[in-house]
Amino acid sequence: MRVVSDTMRLETGPEMQVVDVTGDVASRLEASGLRDGIATLFVQGSTAAVTTVEYEPGLVHDLATAFEKIAPRRGEYRHDERWGDGNGHAHVRASLLGPSLTVPFAGGKLALGAWQQIVFVDFDPPPRSRELAVQFLGQ
Amino acid sequence: MRVVSDTMRLETGPEMQVVDVTGDVASRLEASGLRDGIATLFVQGSTAAVTTVEYEPGLVHDLATAFEKIAPRRGEYRHDERWGDGNGHAHVRASLLGPSLTVPFAGGKLALGAWQQIVFVDFDPPPRSRELAVQFLGQ
Amino acid sequence: MRVVSDTMRLETGPEMQVVDVTGDVASRLEASGLRDGIATLFVQGSTAAVTTVEYEPGLVHDLATAFEKIAPRRGEYRHDERWGDGNGHAHVRASLLGPSLTVPFAGGKLALGAWQQIVFVDFDPPPRSRELAVQFLGQ
Repeated sequence: MRVVSDTMRLETGPEMQVVDVTGDVASRLEASGLRDGIATLFVQGSTAAVTTVEYEPGLVHDLATAFEKIAPRRGEYRHDERWGDGNGHAHVRASLLGPSLTVPFAGGKLALGAWQQIVFVDFDPPPRSRELAVQFLGQ
Repeated sequence: MRVVSDTMRLETGPEMQVVDVTGDVASRLEASGLRDGIATLFVQGSTAAVTTVEYEPGLVHDLATAFEKIAPRRGEYRHDERWGDGNGHAHVRASLLGPSLTVPFAGGKLALGAWQQIVFVDFDPPPRSRELAVQFLGQ
Repeated sequence: MRVVSDTMRLETGPEMQVVDVTGDVASRLEASGLRDGIATLFVQGSTAAVTTVEYEPGLVHDLATAFEKIAPRRGEYRHDERWGDGNGHAHVRASLLGPSLTVPFAGGKLALGAWQQIVFVDFDPPPRSRELAVQFLGQ
Protein backbone atom coordinates (compact mmCIF):
# COMPACT_ATOMS: atom_id res chain seq x y z
CA MET A 1 0.00 0.00 0.00
CA ARG A 2 1.37 3.40 -1.04
CA VAL A 3 0.36 7.06 -1.17
CA VAL A 4 1.17 9.22 -4.21
CA SER A 5 0.44 12.94 -3.63
CA ASP A 6 0.42 15.39 -6.50
CA THR A 7 -0.98 18.75 -7.55
CA MET A 8 -2.60 19.76 -10.83
CA ARG A 9 -2.30 23.37 -11.93
CA LEU A 10 -5.24 24.80 -13.86
CA GLU A 11 -5.45 28.15 -15.62
CA THR A 12 -9.13 29.12 -15.82
CA GLY A 13 -10.80 31.82 -17.89
CA PRO A 14 -13.44 34.38 -16.88
CA GLU A 15 -16.85 33.52 -15.38
CA MET A 16 -17.93 30.04 -14.26
CA GLN A 17 -15.53 27.53 -15.79
CA VAL A 18 -16.08 23.79 -15.93
CA VAL A 19 -12.85 21.97 -16.77
CA ASP A 20 -12.76 18.26 -17.64
CA VAL A 21 -9.78 16.77 -15.76
CA THR A 22 -10.62 13.08 -16.30
CA GLY A 23 -7.85 12.32 -18.78
CA ASP A 24 -5.25 14.02 -16.64
CA VAL A 25 -6.34 12.11 -13.51
CA ALA A 26 -6.32 8.81 -15.45
CA SER A 27 -2.78 9.48 -16.79
CA ARG A 28 -1.48 10.26 -13.31
CA LEU A 29 -3.11 7.10 -11.97
CA GLU A 30 -1.40 5.04 -14.65
CA ALA A 31 1.94 6.75 -13.89
CA SER A 32 1.53 5.92 -10.18
CA GLY A 33 1.53 2.20 -10.95
CA LEU A 34 -1.25 1.62 -8.40
CA ARG A 35 -3.99 -0.89 -9.26
CA ASP A 36 -6.59 -0.78 -6.45
CA GLY A 37 -7.49 2.05 -4.13
CA ILE A 38 -8.91 5.56 -4.10
CA ALA A 39 -8.21 8.77 -5.99
CA THR A 40 -8.89 11.85 -3.89
CA LEU A 41 -9.35 15.20 -5.62
CA PHE A 42 -9.34 18.28 -3.41
CA VAL A 43 -9.64 21.94 -4.42
CA GLN A 44 -7.13 24.09 -2.57
CA GLY A 45 -9.21 27.26 -2.41
CA SER A 46 -12.69 28.37 -1.38
CA THR A 47 -14.25 29.53 -4.65
CA ALA A 48 -13.98 26.36 -6.74
CA ALA A 49 -15.25 22.79 -6.40
CA VAL A 50 -15.15 19.30 -7.94
CA THR A 51 -17.91 16.94 -9.07
CA THR A 52 -18.75 14.70 -12.01
CA VAL A 53 -20.96 15.46 -15.00
CA GLU A 54 -21.61 14.25 -18.53
CA TYR A 55 -19.28 16.85 -20.00
CA GLU A 56 -20.98 18.59 -22.91
CA PRO A 57 -21.70 22.33 -23.48
CA GLY A 58 -25.44 21.99 -22.84
CA LEU A 59 -24.97 20.68 -19.30
CA VAL A 60 -22.21 23.16 -18.53
CA HIS A 61 -24.79 25.87 -19.30
CA ASP A 62 -27.55 24.11 -17.32
CA LEU A 63 -25.32 23.80 -14.25
CA ALA A 64 -24.56 27.53 -14.40
CA THR A 65 -28.31 28.24 -14.57
CA ALA A 66 -28.97 26.19 -11.43
CA PHE A 67 -26.19 27.93 -9.51
CA GLU A 68 -27.46 31.32 -10.65
CA LYS A 69 -30.75 30.40 -8.97
CA ILE A 70 -29.13 29.21 -5.72
CA ALA A 71 -26.58 32.03 -5.39
CA PRO A 72 -27.02 34.69 -8.09
CA ARG A 73 -23.96 36.55 -9.26
CA ARG A 74 -25.68 39.93 -8.77
CA GLY A 75 -27.18 39.02 -5.40
CA GLU A 76 -26.35 40.76 -2.14
CA TYR A 77 -23.62 39.17 -0.05
CA ARG A 78 -22.26 40.24 3.32
CA HIS A 79 -18.91 38.91 2.15
CA ASP A 80 -18.86 41.49 -0.65
CA GLU A 81 -19.93 44.34 1.64
CA ARG A 82 -17.10 43.51 3.98
CA TRP A 83 -14.29 42.58 1.62
CA GLY A 84 -15.33 44.14 -1.69
CA ASP A 85 -14.24 41.05 -3.60
CA GLY A 86 -17.44 40.77 -5.62
CA ASN A 87 -17.22 37.01 -5.38
CA GLY A 88 -19.60 36.19 -2.52
CA HIS A 89 -21.64 34.05 -4.93
CA ALA A 90 -18.51 32.05 -5.83
CA HIS A 91 -17.80 31.24 -2.18
CA VAL A 92 -21.37 30.13 -1.49
CA ARG A 93 -21.54 27.97 -4.63
CA ALA A 94 -18.17 26.34 -3.91
CA SER A 95 -19.13 25.44 -0.34
CA LEU A 96 -22.39 23.91 -1.55
CA LEU A 97 -20.86 21.82 -4.32
CA GLY A 98 -17.93 20.85 -2.13
CA PRO A 99 -14.12 20.74 -2.48
CA SER A 100 -13.56 16.99 -2.37
CA LEU A 101 -14.30 14.02 -4.60
CA THR A 102 -13.29 10.42 -3.98
CA VAL A 103 -13.15 8.06 -6.94
CA PRO A 104 -12.32 4.40 -6.32
CA PHE A 105 -10.18 2.54 -8.84
CA ALA A 106 -9.82 -1.19 -9.43
CA GLY A 107 -7.52 -2.98 -11.88
CA GLY A 108 -5.86 0.38 -12.60
CA LYS A 109 -9.14 1.89 -13.88
CA LEU A 110 -11.21 4.71 -12.34
CA ALA A 111 -14.75 3.55 -11.50
CA LEU A 112 -16.47 6.09 -13.77
CA GLY A 113 -19.54 5.56 -15.91
CA ALA A 114 -19.26 5.71 -19.71
CA TRP A 115 -20.56 9.30 -19.95
CA GLN A 116 -19.27 10.59 -16.65
CA GLN A 117 -16.35 13.02 -16.38
CA ILE A 118 -14.53 14.48 -13.40
CA VAL A 119 -14.78 18.25 -13.54
CA PHE A 120 -13.16 21.14 -11.75
CA VAL A 121 -15.65 24.01 -11.42
CA ASP A 122 -14.21 27.48 -10.91
CA PHE A 123 -16.88 29.92 -9.70
CA ASP A 124 -14.60 32.93 -9.35
CA PRO A 125 -15.26 35.56 -12.06
CA PRO A 126 -11.66 36.61 -12.88
CA PRO A 127 -9.26 34.22 -14.64
CA ARG A 128 -7.27 32.35 -12.03
CA SER A 129 -4.34 30.02 -11.60
CA ARG A 130 -5.66 27.14 -9.51
CA GLU A 131 -4.33 24.15 -7.62
CA LEU A 132 -6.15 20.86 -7.42
CA ALA A 133 -4.64 18.25 -5.12
CA VAL A 134 -4.68 14.77 -6.68
CA GLN A 135 -3.77 11.87 -4.42
CA PHE A 136 -3.79 8.14 -5.02
CA LEU A 137 -3.80 5.73 -2.09
CA GLY A 138 -3.77 2.01 -2.71
CA GLN A 139 -1.77 -0.96 -3.81
CA MET B 1 -4.01 -3.04 4.84
CA ARG B 2 -6.21 -4.31 2.01
CA VAL B 3 -8.57 -3.04 -0.69
CA VAL B 4 -11.84 -4.83 -1.44
CA SER B 5 -13.58 -3.50 -4.58
CA ASP B 6 -17.14 -4.46 -5.38
CA THR B 7 -20.20 -3.28 -7.31
CA MET B 8 -23.83 -3.16 -6.18
CA ARG B 9 -26.51 -3.49 -8.82
CA LEU B 10 -29.74 -1.53 -8.22
CA GLU B 11 -32.95 -1.73 -10.20
CA THR B 12 -34.78 1.56 -9.74
CA GLY B 13 -38.39 2.47 -10.55
CA PRO B 14 -39.79 5.57 -12.30
CA GLU B 15 -39.19 9.17 -11.12
CA MET B 16 -36.84 10.19 -8.32
CA GLN B 17 -35.96 7.09 -6.32
CA VAL B 18 -34.27 7.09 -2.94
CA VAL B 19 -32.94 3.62 -2.10
CA ASP B 20 -31.62 2.72 1.36
CA VAL B 21 -28.41 0.71 0.83
CA THR B 22 -27.14 0.81 4.43
CA GLY B 23 -27.81 -2.84 5.24
CA ASP B 24 -26.20 -4.01 2.03
CA VAL B 25 -23.06 -1.90 2.63
CA ALA B 26 -22.83 -3.16 6.24
CA SER B 27 -23.12 -6.81 5.11
CA ARG B 28 -20.39 -6.34 2.52
CA LEU B 29 -18.16 -4.68 5.11
CA GLU B 30 -18.65 -7.64 7.44
CA ALA B 31 -17.88 -10.07 4.61
CA SER B 32 -14.65 -8.16 3.82
CA GLY B 33 -13.29 -8.93 7.27
CA LEU B 34 -11.87 -5.42 7.56
CA ARG B 35 -12.11 -3.64 10.93
CA ASP B 36 -10.77 -0.09 10.47
CA GLY B 37 -10.72 2.07 7.38
CA ILE B 38 -13.03 3.77 4.87
CA ALA B 39 -15.98 2.68 2.77
CA THR B 40 -16.17 4.57 -0.52
CA LEU B 41 -19.46 4.61 -2.43
CA PHE B 42 -19.35 5.93 -5.96
CA VAL B 43 -22.17 6.18 -8.50
CA GLN B 44 -21.07 5.02 -11.94
CA GLY B 45 -23.27 7.31 -13.99
CA SER B 46 -24.17 10.98 -14.24
CA THR B 47 -27.86 11.08 -13.28
CA ALA B 48 -27.74 9.56 -9.79
CA ALA B 49 -25.97 10.41 -6.52
CA VAL B 50 -25.30 9.23 -2.96
CA THR B 51 -25.82 10.91 0.41
CA THR B 52 -27.20 10.11 3.86
CA VAL B 53 -30.67 10.85 5.22
CA GLU B 54 -33.00 9.75 7.99
CA TYR B 55 -34.78 7.34 5.67
CA GLU B 56 -38.55 7.80 6.05
CA PRO B 57 -41.20 8.61 3.41
CA GLY B 58 -41.70 12.20 4.63
CA LEU B 59 -38.09 13.17 4.02
CA VAL B 60 -37.93 11.34 0.71
CA HIS B 61 -40.78 13.61 -0.39
CA ASP B 62 -39.16 16.74 1.11
CA LEU B 63 -35.88 16.06 -0.69
CA ALA B 64 -37.74 15.76 -3.99
CA THR B 65 -39.43 19.11 -3.31
CA ALA B 66 -36.08 20.83 -2.73
CA PHE B 67 -34.62 19.39 -5.94
CA GLU B 68 -37.71 20.42 -7.87
CA LYS B 69 -36.93 23.97 -6.77
CA ILE B 70 -33.25 23.82 -7.71
CA ALA B 71 -33.66 22.02 -11.05
CA PRO B 72 -37.34 21.56 -11.98
CA ARG B 73 -38.28 18.54 -14.01
CA ARG B 74 -40.24 20.65 -16.52
CA GLY B 75 -37.59 23.38 -16.73
CA GLU B 76 -35.68 24.27 -19.88
CA TYR B 77 -32.33 22.57 -20.33
CA ARG B 78 -29.83 22.96 -23.13
CA HIS B 79 -28.96 19.32 -22.61
CA ASP B 80 -32.51 18.35 -23.58
CA GLU B 81 -32.57 20.63 -26.62
CA ARG B 82 -29.38 19.05 -27.85
CA TRP B 83 -29.85 15.42 -26.95
CA GLY B 84 -33.61 15.07 -26.48
CA ASP B 85 -33.13 12.87 -23.43
CA GLY B 86 -35.58 14.81 -21.29
CA ASN B 87 -33.33 14.28 -18.28
CA GLY B 88 -31.41 17.57 -18.07
CA HIS B 89 -32.82 18.08 -14.56
CA ALA B 90 -31.47 14.66 -13.50
CA HIS B 91 -27.95 15.52 -14.64
CA VAL B 92 -27.94 18.88 -12.85
CA ARG B 93 -29.32 17.39 -9.62
CA ALA B 94 -26.83 14.53 -9.65
CA SER B 95 -23.84 16.84 -10.14
CA LEU B 96 -25.01 19.02 -7.26
CA LEU B 97 -25.60 16.20 -4.80
CA GLY B 98 -22.43 14.43 -5.89
CA PRO B 99 -21.45 10.89 -6.88
CA SER B 100 -19.18 9.99 -3.95
CA LEU B 101 -19.60 9.32 -0.25
CA THR B 102 -16.87 8.27 2.17
CA VAL B 103 -17.92 6.57 5.38
CA PRO B 104 -15.23 5.67 7.92
CA PHE B 105 -15.54 2.45 9.89
CA ALA B 106 -13.90 1.43 13.17
CA GLY B 107 -14.14 -1.90 14.96
CA GLY B 108 -15.97 -3.29 11.92
CA LYS B 109 -18.81 -0.77 12.28
CA LEU B 110 -19.76 2.08 9.92
CA ALA B 111 -19.60 5.47 11.69
CA LEU B 112 -23.29 6.29 11.09
CA GLY B 113 -25.67 8.04 13.47
CA ALA B 114 -28.63 6.14 14.92
CA TRP B 115 -31.12 7.61 12.43
CA GLN B 116 -28.83 8.06 9.49
CA GLN B 117 -28.98 5.86 6.38
CA ILE B 118 -26.83 5.71 3.26
CA VAL B 119 -29.02 6.33 0.23
CA PHE B 120 -28.64 6.00 -3.50
CA VAL B 121 -30.69 8.72 -5.24
CA ASP B 122 -31.69 8.06 -8.84
CA PHE B 123 -32.87 11.25 -10.55
CA ASP B 124 -33.46 9.73 -13.98
CA PRO B 125 -37.17 9.45 -14.80
CA PRO B 126 -37.24 6.00 -16.50
CA PRO B 127 -36.60 2.80 -14.50
CA ARG B 128 -32.92 1.96 -14.71
CA SER B 129 -30.42 -0.73 -13.89
CA ARG B 130 -27.69 1.02 -11.95
CA GLU B 131 -24.19 0.32 -10.71
CA LEU B 132 -22.85 1.63 -7.43
CA ALA B 133 -19.17 1.00 -6.72
CA VAL B 134 -18.58 -0.07 -3.11
CA GLN B 135 -14.99 -0.21 -1.97
CA PHE B 136 -13.47 -0.91 1.43
CA LEU B 137 -9.91 0.11 2.20
CA GLY B 138 -8.39 -0.62 5.57
CA GLN B 139 -7.05 -3.24 7.90
CA MET C 1 0.15 2.32 6.60
CA ARG C 2 -2.11 2.87 9.61
CA VAL C 3 -5.65 3.94 10.50
CA VAL C 4 -6.32 6.31 13.40
CA SER C 5 -10.05 6.63 14.21
CA ASP C 6 -11.31 9.35 16.53
CA THR C 7 -14.42 11.38 17.36
CA MET C 8 -14.75 15.11 17.95
CA ARG C 9 -17.51 16.30 20.25
CA LEU C 10 -19.10 19.65 19.39
CA GLU C 11 -21.56 21.64 21.47
CA THR C 12 -23.55 23.85 19.09
CA GLY C 13 -25.79 26.81 19.87
CA PRO C 14 -29.27 27.68 18.48
CA GLU C 15 -30.04 28.11 14.75
CA MET C 16 -27.66 27.31 11.91
CA GLN C 17 -24.16 27.05 13.34
CA VAL C 18 -20.96 27.02 11.33
CA VAL C 19 -18.04 25.79 13.44
CA ASP C 20 -14.42 26.03 12.25
CA VAL C 21 -12.76 22.70 13.13
CA THR C 22 -9.57 23.16 11.07
CA GLY C 23 -7.21 23.70 14.00
CA ASP C 24 -8.60 20.71 15.86
CA VAL C 25 -8.24 18.43 12.80
CA ALA C 26 -4.67 19.67 12.20
CA SER C 27 -3.71 18.98 15.86
CA ARG C 28 -5.13 15.48 15.71
CA LEU C 29 -3.27 14.83 12.47
CA GLU C 30 -0.03 15.94 14.08
CA ALA C 31 -0.72 13.73 17.12
CA SER C 32 -1.33 10.73 14.81
CA GLY C 33 2.24 10.93 13.52
CA LEU C 34 1.03 10.22 9.98
CA ARG C 35 2.68 12.12 7.10
CA ASP C 36 0.85 11.14 3.87
CA GLY C 37 -2.71 10.00 3.39
CA ILE C 38 -6.31 11.14 3.81
CA ALA C 39 -8.32 12.71 6.60
CA THR C 40 -11.97 11.68 6.52
CA LEU C 41 -14.54 13.77 8.37
CA PHE C 42 -17.99 12.27 8.77
CA VAL C 43 -21.01 13.70 10.58
CA GLN C 44 -22.73 11.07 12.69
CA GLY C 45 -26.26 12.42 12.39
CA SER C 46 -28.70 13.52 9.70
CA THR C 47 -29.17 17.25 10.40
CA ALA C 48 -25.58 18.49 10.11
CA ALA C 49 -22.90 18.45 7.40
CA VAL C 50 -19.27 19.27 6.61
CA THR C 51 -17.68 21.41 3.91
CA THR C 52 -14.98 24.06 3.54
CA VAL C 53 -15.40 27.83 3.44
CA GLU C 54 -13.37 31.00 3.94
CA TYR C 55 -14.46 31.29 7.54
CA GLU C 56 -15.61 34.84 8.22
CA PRO C 57 -18.97 36.16 9.56
CA GLY C 58 -20.08 37.57 6.20
CA LEU C 59 -19.92 34.19 4.44
CA VAL C 60 -21.50 32.38 7.37
CA HIS C 61 -24.47 34.71 6.87
CA ASP C 62 -24.43 34.29 3.08
CA LEU C 63 -24.45 30.50 3.35
CA ALA C 64 -27.48 30.68 5.65
CA THR C 65 -29.26 32.88 3.09
CA ALA C 66 -28.66 30.36 0.30
CA PHE C 67 -29.96 27.46 2.42
CA GLU C 68 -33.01 29.50 3.40
CA LYS C 69 -33.79 29.71 -0.31
CA ILE C 70 -33.26 25.98 -0.97
CA ALA C 71 -35.06 24.68 2.12
CA PRO C 72 -36.69 27.50 4.11
CA ARG C 73 -36.97 27.10 7.85
CA ARG C 74 -40.70 27.98 7.80
CA GLY C 75 -41.47 25.85 4.75
CA GLU C 76 -43.82 22.87 4.75
CA TYR C 77 -42.22 19.49 5.28
CA ARG C 78 -43.84 16.06 5.35
CA HIS C 79 -41.21 15.10 7.91
CA ASP C 80 -42.59 17.73 10.30
CA GLU C 81 -46.21 16.70 9.72
CA ARG C 82 -45.33 13.15 10.56
CA TRP C 83 -42.83 13.55 13.37
CA GLY C 84 -43.48 17.07 14.68
CA ASP C 85 -39.75 17.72 15.02
CA GLY C 86 -39.88 21.08 13.26
CA ASN C 87 -36.53 20.32 11.66
CA GLY C 88 -37.50 19.08 8.19
CA HIS C 89 -35.45 21.93 6.69
CA ALA C 90 -32.37 20.80 8.66
CA HIS C 91 -32.61 17.26 7.28
CA VAL C 92 -33.00 18.42 3.68
CA ARG C 93 -30.10 20.90 3.97
CA ALA C 94 -27.81 18.33 5.59
CA SER C 95 -28.48 15.72 2.88
CA LEU C 96 -27.74 18.29 0.17
CA LEU C 97 -24.50 19.55 1.67
CA GLY C 98 -23.41 16.04 2.59
CA PRO C 99 -22.01 14.32 5.69
CA SER C 100 -18.53 13.48 4.42
CA LEU C 101 -15.39 15.40 3.50
CA THR C 102 -12.06 13.91 2.47
CA VAL C 103 -8.94 16.06 2.82
CA PRO C 104 -5.63 14.66 1.59
CA PHE C 105 -2.48 15.42 3.55
CA ALA C 106 1.17 15.31 2.45
CA GLY C 107 4.28 15.93 4.53
CA GLY C 108 2.05 16.06 7.63
CA LYS C 109 0.08 19.03 6.27
CA LEU C 110 -3.59 19.17 5.22
CA ALA C 111 -3.95 20.19 1.54
CA LEU C 112 -6.02 23.32 2.31
CA GLY C 113 -5.82 26.70 0.58
CA ALA C 114 -4.63 29.75 2.54
CA TRP C 115 -8.17 31.05 3.19
CA GLN C 116 -9.98 27.74 3.34
CA GLN C 117 -11.30 26.27 6.58
CA ILE C 118 -12.99 22.95 7.35
CA VAL C 119 -16.39 23.65 8.87
CA PHE C 120 -19.03 21.63 10.66
CA VAL C 121 -22.49 23.02 9.80
CA ASP C 122 -25.29 22.24 12.24
CA PHE C 123 -28.69 22.93 10.70
CA ASP C 124 -30.78 21.77 13.67
CA PRO C 125 -32.43 24.69 15.47
CA PRO C 126 -31.97 23.60 19.11
CA PRO C 127 -28.49 23.53 20.72
CA ARG C 128 -27.06 20.05 20.33
CA SER C 129 -24.19 17.88 21.41
CA ARG C 130 -22.72 16.50 18.20
CA GLU C 131 -20.28 13.86 17.10
CA LEU C 132 -17.98 14.25 14.14
CA ALA C 133 -15.91 11.21 13.18
CA VAL C 134 -12.30 12.14 12.32
CA GLN C 135 -10.20 9.42 10.78
CA PHE C 136 -6.67 9.48 9.38
CA LEU C 137 -5.49 6.77 7.03
CA GLY C 138 -1.95 6.81 5.68
CA GLN C 139 1.69 6.35 6.43
